[in-house]
Amino acid sequence: MASSSSSEVPVAQAETFPDGTTDHVPMRKRTYDLRKPHITDQPITWTNWWQHVNWLNTYFIIVVPAIGLVASYWVNLQYKTAIFAVLYYFFSGLGITAGYHRLWAHSSYKASLPLKIFLAAGGAASVEGSARWWSSLHRSHHRYTDTEKDPYSVRKGLLYSHLGWMVMKQNPRRIGRTDITDLNDDAVVVWQHRNYLKSVITMALVVPTLICGLGWGDFAGGFVYGGILRIFFVQQATFCVNSLAHWLGDQPFDDRNSPRDHVITALVTLGEGYHNFHHEFPSDFRNAIEWWQYDPTKWFIWTMKQLGLAYNLKTFPQNEIEKGRVQQLQKKLDKQRSTLDWGAPLESLPVVSWDDFVEQSKNGKAWIAVAGVIHDVGNFIADHPGGKALISSAIGKDATAVFNGGVYDHSNGAHNLLSTMRVGVLRGGCEVEIWKRAQSENKDVNAITD
Amino acid sequence: MASSSSSEVPVAQAETFPDGTTDHVPMRKRTYDLRKPHITDQPITWTNWWQHVNWLNTYFIIVVPAIGLVASYWVNLQYKTAIFAVLYYFFSGLGITAGYHRLWAHSSYKASLPLKIFLAAGGAASVEGSARWWSSLHRSHHRYTDTEKDPYSVRKGLLYSHLGWMVMKQNPRRIGRTDITDLNDDAVVVWQHRNYLKSVITMALVVPTLICGLGWGDFAGGFVYGGILRIFFVQQATFCVNSLAHWLGDQPFDDRNSPRDHVITALVTLGEGYHNFHHEFPSDFRNAIEWWQYDPTKWFIWTMKQLGLAYNLKTFPQNEIEKGRVQQLQKKLDKQRSTLDWGAPLESLPVVSWDDFVEQSKNGKAWIAVAGVIHDVGNFIADHPGGKALISSAIGKDATAVFNGGVYDHSNGAHNLLSTMRVGVLRGGCEVEIWKRAQSENKDVNAITD
Ligand code: HEM
Ligand code: HEM
Ligand SMILES: [Fe+2]
Ligand SMILES: [Fe+2]
Ligand SMILES: [Fe+2]
Ligand SMILES: [Fe+2]
Repeated sequence: MASSSSSEVPVAQAETFPDGTTDHVPMRKRTYDLRKPHITDQPITWTNWWQHVNWLNTYFIIVVPAIGLVASYWVNLQYKTAIFAVLYYFFSGLGITAGYHRLWAHSSYKASLPLKIFLAAGGAASVEGSARWWSSLHRSHHRYTDTEKDPYSVRKGLLYSHLGWMVMKQNPRRIGRTDITDLNDDAVVVWQHRNYLKSVITMALVVPTLICGLGWGDFAGGFVYGGILRIFFVQQATFCVNSLAHWLGDQPFDDRNSPRDHVITALVTLGEGYHNFHHEFPSDFRNAIEWWQYDPTKWFIWTMKQLGLAYNLKTFPQNEIEKGRVQQLQKKLDKQRSTLDWGAPLESLPVVSWDDFVEQSKNGKAWIAVAGVIHDVGNFIADHPGGKALISSAIGKDATAVFNGGVYDHSNGAHNLLSTMRVGVLRGGCEVEIWKRAQSENKDVNAITD
Repeated sequence: MASSSSSEVPVAQAETFPDGTTDHVPMRKRTYDLRKPHITDQPITWTNWWQHVNWLNTYFIIVVPAIGLVASYWVNLQYKTAIFAVLYYFFSGLGITAGYHRLWAHSSYKASLPLKIFLAAGGAASVEGSARWWSSLHRSHHRYTDTEKDPYSVRKGLLYSHLGWMVMKQNPRRIGRTDITDLNDDAVVVWQHRNYLKSVITMALVVPTLICGLGWGDFAGGFVYGGILRIFFVQQATFCVNSLAHWLGDQPFDDRNSPRDHVITALVTLGEGYHNFHHEFPSDFRNAIEWWQYDPTKWFIWTMKQLGLAYNLKTFPQNEIEKGRVQQLQKKLDKQRSTLDWGAPLESLPVVSWDDFVEQSKNGKAWIAVAGVIHDVGNFIADHPGGKALISSAIGKDATAVFNGGVYDHSNGAHNLLSTMRVGVLRGGCEVEIWKRAQSENKDVNAITD
């Protein structure tokens, strides 16, 4: 039944679309017909709800862990079994994160055959579907993030993205098409897919039971803690990549969609918590790019590389990463900027002649010209940090030079404040005073009137 | 000798400059002549160094505390005296921060007579000069921050800004001119200035000694701990506003000059540590604008307001504060942006005709046109997160639509990456393909050659 040679695997294919993507087709059910109506075409009612539930998944995700919890009441947790369960937890977790996710779904590095087998075994031990099924859906998730075609869109609710999408049947036509020709060419992926149930029972239950049983005589503990309860924890943890990572945290690279970065998600998911980065740079073998962030999956892949078992580790150029960060900061800043009052636009102000400006200032208006714009500083004289005398001395004058360093080089904040006091624009701009003086001193300068 | 009426105080004035500022002139030394040569005009040598030292200040800042430290060896610290010394520390510290600094130097609020007397007494108790002298120098410091005219410029070294400027004589002509007419009109300021030595001895030493002595019989402890050592701590703490606050921390509002925000400085200086904000908005009665920042001086002023002892508390409009913050962030961002590679500028690229583009793509070049620009994706095909098939299918074509949502709505990061792959500009821009197709289908569209 199983074939481990990649070239001649007779994979069931849907019609191939010209761009190389295909509808997702399970390899086991040859009779499956995409054109037949699907149960999800009908609304959920009191009489058909049981047809909407995916009972197999419900059994694996909810019923079995419940049994395990009850069983743990009678089964004593031994010290050695506890240690083993934790180690096996990491093994099966890495199968999902380093294997299913970063290797197969995103091809972010290349793995040698032994490493592939190790990861496929770990993936099976965590009971979350085959690598082929998982990666195919995950590619749809990236391509159609947050849309109707996203298999686990967080827009349908946190619980839906966490496990609702597995517990309820999904219409395979709804889920976005992706190109998985590379997975169909991967012998380990195809073998694991074809022998999925066998692999799961062996890796998830038989192996932990045997290790604890033959190792230190704790068959029951191995089954309950190393098997069932460990499965439950790994599942809930890795499900968080689809739920929590699209719900909790910051968006340093892109805020168009839901993916977010948060250290809590990272702690829970063996480092998959920097999910905003990951959706932006999915083919990077890292999820965390800072050394101090928690990404054990990255450390694992790096170690495999040192051991010669992994190679071609892909990273996005740092320049591109920084560009993304800068642009997102810019976006946030622009948003903030647009909520502030930056003063009356110059084109909305009346144009005032120099003589009018001087005249009004003599008649009690506290007007000061700076850079061709007239400002009413009346309400500010008493509050001026530089004292009343200096600011009052500039009334009715062009204070461009004194304001900009002649007497005091005012701060940014002072320039901002000034812009809120605008009342008019000088006809002819800020050089008007110099020009007027030149004119009165040097009679052959021609007066130009506009 | 003392006059408490403000209108007829015969204050010694230097020549008044037309803008209302004056050189700083001590009120006590009537004989003082600004035109005489000053010791600081001569370089420090082995023979004249003692003339450069300001022995009075050295005595108050260094000798007396040293004596106190030695004396504390023989004087037992009593519980009640310790409590009193801490309270008296806050009283004298607030005299400087709420009094000398925020009230008199910056007029950031108005105080009733009892509060003024309280603050002037506290200021005297901390032995840092008179309010008039301190405020005048402090105004120079704000107006000429970091320049030669700044009395305690941090550019001359951290130690200089901390106490070097007091221990060494200063040329009064070097220090920037400021307008202190309002201080000369303030009766409390003038009285304290005229009776400075008396005030200091009373408030800094006599009062603490008497309180501890008459209160619980600890004359010696009152003198050593409540007096001398407490003075030392208050001095060192408040000196930090001139040194540490210009040296340690962030610059969220302006980075042209040295002032910085840091919580450590705030903790040491009764809240004066948000000094970047303060230099930008000096007439704000607050230094910390967030509720969770440590600014007990602000809380003190606010409490005085509730008690009816302070009024006209000035704040800068929040809009102006946010504008300053946004602009500084923008500045930082622009700096970061300029260090990154944003791809070859379009004007530096060769112009390629559509036919050449198609031709070259057929002859092995992996060229893709997006938005009128030709990109060489050859080195990226194997790394493309969306798979080889999709990206290859666009070679030799205009992929503007598929790239921008037709097949996949690429992220910011993808657009950035694309810009690094530029090799040419299409003659006629991105509509060229549509136009060519229209032309071949509809012969009456005219071919325009440029
Ligand atoms: C026209 C409207 C004016 C506005 C809105 C304004 C605003 C300000 C502000 C906000 C400060 C605080 C420090 C800073 O942010 O840089 C300041 C300080 C100062 N201003 Fe003005 N100013 C104006 C006019 C003037 C004029 C005309 C003069 C001089 C002729 C002047 C002289 C000074 C000086 C010397 C300081 C420094 C005082 C200190 O920081 O202690 N200002 N001004
Ligand atoms: C022309 C140069 C191209 C560049 C530089 C590029 C770059 C990228 C990048 C960086 C991603 C990762 C996700 C993201 O950042 O949005 C991506 C994903 C993708 N690209 Fe491209 N792309 C190119 C061309 C194309 C073309 C022509 C197509 C389709 C005809 C395509 C289809 C896709 C798809 C479907 C994905 C989603 C895969 C996933 O995230 O799992 N790309 N591309
Ligand atoms: Fe995701
Ligand atoms: Fe992913
Ligand atoms: Fe300062
Ligand atoms: Fe200040």
